[in-house]
Amino acid sequence: MEALRQLLGVDIPVIQAPMAGVQDAELAAAISNAGGLGSLPCAMLDAVALEAELQRLARLTDKPFNVNFFCHEPPAVAARQAGQWLQCLSAYFHELDLEPPGESPVVSRQPFGDESLAVLERFKPAVASFHFGLPRPSHLDRLKSWGTTVLASATTVDEARWLADHGADAVIAQGLEAGGHRGSFLTEDMSTQTGTMALVPRVCAAVSIPVIAAGGIASPAGVAAVLTLGAAGVQIGTAFLLCPEAKTGALHRKALTSESANHTALTNVFTGRPARSIVNRLVRELGPMSSEATAFPSAAGPVALLRAAAEKKGRDDFTPLWSGQNTLGCRELPAAELLGILASQLPSRHAGTPPDQH
Amino acid sequence: MEALRQLLGVDIPVIQAPMAGVQDAELAAAISNAGGLGSLPCAMLDAVALEAELQRLARLTDKPFNVNFFCHEPPAVAARQAGQWLQCLSAYFHELDLEPPGESPVVSRQPFGDESLAVLERFKPAVASFHFGLPRPSHLDRLKSWGTTVLASATTVDEARWLADHGADAVIAQGLEAGGHRGSFLTEDMSTQTGTMALVPRVCAAVSIPVIAAGGIASPAGVAAVLTLGAAGVQIGTAFLLCPEAKTGALHRKALTSESANHTALTNVFTGRPARSIVNRLVRELGPMSSEATAFPSAAGPVALLRAAAEKKGRDDFTPLWSGQNTLGCRELPAAELLGILASQLPSRHAGTPPDQH
Repeated sequence: MEALRQLLGVDIPVIQAPMAGVQDAELAAAISNAGGLGSLPCAMLDAVALEAELQRLARLTDKPFNVNFFCHEPPAVAARQAGQWLQCLSAYFHELDLEPPGESPVVSRQPFGDESLAVLERFKPAVASFHFGLPRPSHLDRLKSWGTTVLASATTVDEARWLADHGADAVIAQGLEAGGHRGSFLTEDMSTQTGTMALVPRVCAAVSIPVIAAGGIASPAGVAAVLTLGAAGVQIGTAFLLCPEAKTGALHRKALTSESANHTALTNVFTGRPARSIVNRLVRELGPMSSEATAFPSAAGPVALLRAAAEKKGRDDFTPLWSGQNTLGCRELPAAELLGILASQLPSRHAGTPPDQH
Repeated sequence: MEALRQLLGVDIPVIQAPMAGVQDAELAAAISNAGGLGSLPCAMLDAVALEAELQRLARLTDKPFNVNFFCHEPPAVAARQAGQWLQCLSAYFHELDLEPPGESPVVSRQPFGDESLAVLERFKPAVASFHFGLPRPSHLDRLKSWGTTVLASATTVDEARWLADHGADAVIAQGLEAGGHRGSFLTEDMSTQTGTMALVPRVCAAVSIPVIAAGGIASPAGVAAVLTLGAAGVQIGTAFLLCPEAKTGALHRKALTSESANHTALTNVFTGRPARSIVNRLVRELGPMSSEATAFPSAAGPVALLRAAAEKKGRDDFTPLWSGQNTLGCRELPAAELLGILASQLPSRHAGTPPDQH
């Protein structure tokens, strides 16, 4: 755990999971200021927005923070496939009195690349984390040349080994309980996805870099449990979704505190990639996994139009209600306070060190 | 934990998971004699075999043990459905030079009922556990009238509440990492299945009876971790599969110690119900989930013929290779020794009790 604390530059080895679409610099700063590692989800930001958000974050905290990016291959979606997906959704457009788009709208989830790197160079963040693999070697080398610690998500033992072999400084073992997108990049076979209780010890046995546990962790006992399993730290997302610093929408907040939150599923209907969401109408009717959804992130284009129209009517039918399988930790508390609770069973930083070494 | 120890009558609150087809009284007795709770899988035994196996178990141990039964509804499989499943498998029969059966062979997995109860009455086992729900109320009342403690598996919070409301003395929270059959009985939607890290705290929060954690637990640290999450005890299966007292076949043992064990899946191709097995040829080619597999347990009939023929040729193509997602705990050690290792981080029975109360 001490090695990870040093790698991340934090007192509390709890990473606030980056959650694109539901949080920005405000939540990240609150967590970093409280001694954990706040994360800024950058996958939906273009260079201008990234620069602005990083400036804001740097004003809000002088502590280490994490910037998170996606490393997917931008897909070439054939017109025929895009048309099929629009066809699947056409009854919804009709129901909402919306004109179905002639072609699939462009979706702003760019993979990590030169532009992002140029902006980051001015901020030299302490930590960068990646989903869906790692940046290309030249980009990774540049990042690491500034002293940035590199984390990435593994959903299988094979992915953990690959990340360790390709330059990650620590690996996030993302158990299938976790909310939002699976970080999978070596397989599309969801039967490979593994519960945290099995994944964490298996990844710990397979790699020699520190392992950060994610998925289903929502209490001080949950944090203590995964450290017992061998993790050096934890990443927690869902629990922070009700914090006032999060930008979670009202419908999403309501779903998280309702009985609906008892049933989440891995679904590709929101973006084209499997991600864990509370089961709502779109997931129920077209999913959870649809062979018609176009490749990530293009499936999200038409769904975003439906979502906007339905939300105006107070309905969450098309809203991605990202959530892990354990919402017991969701509390309407300031993020710093919730972090303090979650970290309350952690051994203190210098526990075990003889007093004369202080 | 103490309440569960008393309910089960054991020193070590570790239950050896009942594993039909791969173990009998020998493994159960070894575990019970070592202070844990051994389990006899009874779902595949008729009344005569049940009587014989219980007599054997009673000779091998005078400690409490658990008898495990299934509570499924015996299905009425239409001839057309049985024919479709045989059609799916026909190329395999051809390949193995086997005559496809004219109709689906009868499968010996009877639900718990009068016959089993009559045999049990002569043994009055300390503990009985159930998969796929609970026996009918009159049966349950008779069982409990002898002082038998009743356990049952829950794979969701709803199932745990149902079991607590219908007379279970403790509930086994079966995380989706677990090997073998899912205990599901209120849903067939596998997207509801929940990882141990999330399921255990959620079930603990939902019911007031003791919760036994199962799924992905394979080490002393795993045992300690789920107790931290609130479980009063654990149920462990996969780790015991290599013990000399288990009847695990040679091909199954080989698979458990090979790279194949890294990929298990929930599959219905072996029996008609979702169960976790190492992915082998049948799972890969027809599954993991097949809409053609006939209702449990009838799908197993023709597969058993293929299995027997293939195993003679040294191939595990059609063998149910039951396994959880964590095979790190599998050790070729006597069961008592392995139990001792798994229980080595448990608080001792009287820890915390002042000496003068002993």
